[in-house]
Amino acid sequence: MLVKLRVALAAKPPVLYVVVVLLLPCLTLGAGAIVPIPPLKPVDSITAEKIRLGRSLFEERLLSRDNSVSCSSCHDLSGAGVDHKPRSIGINGAVGDINAPTVFNATFNFRQFWNGRAKTLEAQIDGPVQNPKEMGSSWNEVVRKLKAIQTYQDRFRKIYPDGVTPENVKDAIATFERQLVTPDSRFDEFLSGKSALDELAKKGYENFKSFGCISCHQGVNVGGNMYQTMGVMGNYFKDRGTPITEADLGRFAVTKREADKYVFRVPSLRNVELTAPYFHDGSASTLEDAVRVMAKYQLGRQISDREIDSVVAFLKTLTGKAPAVLENSRTTAGAKAQ
Amino acid sequence: MLVKLRVALAAKPPVLYVVVVLLLPCLTLGAGAIVPIPPLKPVDSITAEKIRLGRSLFEERLLSRDNSVSCSSCHDLSGAGVDHKPRSIGINGAVGDINAPTVFNATFNFRQFWNGRAKTLEAQIDGPVQNPKEMGSSWNEVVRKLKAIQTYQDRFRKIYPDGVTPENVKDAIATFERQLVTPDSRFDEFLSGKSALDELAKKGYENFKSFGCISCHQGVNVGGNMYQTMGVMGNYFKDRGTPITEADLGRFAVTKREADKYVFRVPSLRNVELTAPYFHDGSASTLEDAVRVMAKYQLGRQISDREIDSVVAFLKTLTGKAPAVLENSRTTAGAKAQ
Repeated sequence: MLVKLRVALAAKPPVLYVVVVLLLPCLTLGAGAIVPIPPLKPVDSITAEKIRLGRSLFEERLLSRDNSVSCSSCHDLSGAGVDHKPRSIGINGAVGDINAPTVFNATFNFRQFWNGRAKTLEAQIDGPVQNPKEMGSSWNEVVRKLKAIQTYQDRFRKIYPDGVTPENVKDAIATFERQLVTPDSRFDEFLSGKSALDELAKKGYENFKSFGCISCHQGVNVGGNMYQTMGVMGNYFKDRGTPITEADLGRFAVTKREADKYVFRVPSLRNVELTAPYFHDGSASTLEDAVRVMAKYQLGRQISDREIDSVVAFLKTLTGKAPAVLENSRTTAGAKAQ
Repeated sequence: MLVKLRVALAAKPPVLYVVVVLLLPCLTLGAGAIVPIPPLKPVDSITAEKIRLGRSLFEERLLSRDNSVSCSSCHDLSGAGVDHKPRSIGINGAVGDINAPTVFNATFNFRQFWNGRAKTLEAQIDGPVQNPKEMGSSWNEVVRKLKAIQTYQDRFRKIYPDGVTPENVKDAIATFERQLVTPDSRFDEFLSGKSALDELAKKGYENFKSFGCISCHQGVNVGGNMYQTMGVMGNYFKDRGTPITEADLGRFAVTKREADKYVFRVPSLRNVELTAPYFHDGSASTLEDAVRVMAKYQLGRQISDREIDSVVAFLKTLTGKAPAVLENSRTTAGAKAQ
């Protein structure tokens, strides 16, 4: 509407004088829907509002074509940011192509998605919203539906001068997602010198390093900062026995380079205790399975049950505390933030 | 290096076993430069580090080709985020094409740049870094220079798993810029019912509304949320007398549509008392001049000196407090944050 008005302005100054000087102020001042100049709030308060808006949008089913699926459908915030399904379920019961990665600590991954096709959390959001097997919607549709709800209009306007737009939806959701950090795991306390690991976990950490797991699962997210082939030391996909899907090709889908076939972003192991099943295909249902498969296909090593138990004990020390933002909003505003 | 390693991995598993399992852990564990798994910090502490990094980058001359110009060269943080020049000066004394808009409260503008060509603060940063009359650099060059400095390497690594990248430089700077909010102006206190405006400013606000200034200068940023033609009610550029530049064409440079000639993003009036000279061409050196020109060319109205004084008195109530982030870092770490 503003654009139309502007074109009119450029074309017909005298008529427009009436529109701009007399009508528009009446519109903006009338009805109380739009305050012409709201006060400027301190940045902390703006950010807090943005985080609350982002959480509402994260839990908003209107983002999907038939209003049945929200981000939290596949990334359960009351759990560990996953849905515990081998492959996620989208609108109309569509079975997705891949195991949903956790949104917890996703801010520390160098790329998003298993094949790393999004560089930022914002860019990642384009995927599920428009994927026909996930939300099956479009940004036009999402914006239209959100704009139809006055409380969303108001909440966006308080933060963003241009109100409900795809960029602003993505900015709010990504800002919320950046809060989903799970600090204070037993391993973090060990690293910070606050407490020791128990004997089995300590042995597991030693094994994790000496076996070579740490070559890929390193950095603050214990993974999430490099790509790696699934099946460095053996043909994982052949042994799996089920047909190869496009999702199995990994980064090849992005680069179309032969060398990128079966190459994936190394997943974070933070909270891995809580995010079964494992791997991009959800093929490992327990941590023990996952460790055994990784040892065989990534390291070319057969490890004993006792060694597996030790690594699993170490992995369990990577379980952090729930993100503070979720605790706070539960305390103050029930399950769904307002 | 990781990419090369990955390709090698895919190609030669047995050789690679040695590299991955034996060499890489040694590299990552050796020398203390890279900690294989640093502890996860709470999100507030990560964000605080990101803001500090963003400020350092904002003040970093290495972003320019000859290491002479930083963001803060044109957006002085000790003032009001401007350089007080009609047109900014870039590398080698190059005179820019346009008056530098303030970075303060820029987060509340619906688009960035006078012609609105950037949708986000992140996207905006591509402009000055690569503009030959501003920083004249390239992202490759910026990344190379920042990577050559160990403290930057370390500071990026603490926050971003992929270290120094164009995306991460932009994310850090934009995160810092989002802190540059100036709350608690006299006008905000008036809007919040905390205090009254003095008589002249009150009259000025009435005039600001009744003259029609508020048709465009509205919203939380008192502007910054729509486009408008410079010269709705008269030919500003003809009367100005100096040749029309490409910058004068405004949004036309972006859309190439005839109707977008001379169309600009309406600037915010927050802190306008402190941001002279005014307009995209810096042609008005005082607030009084600016108000007189606006009344004539945007509203087709000749207003008296007394009316101008009142509007100016109102505009001066829009001066907010310095952003808290600048106060804090000055107190704790001197002029330049570490």
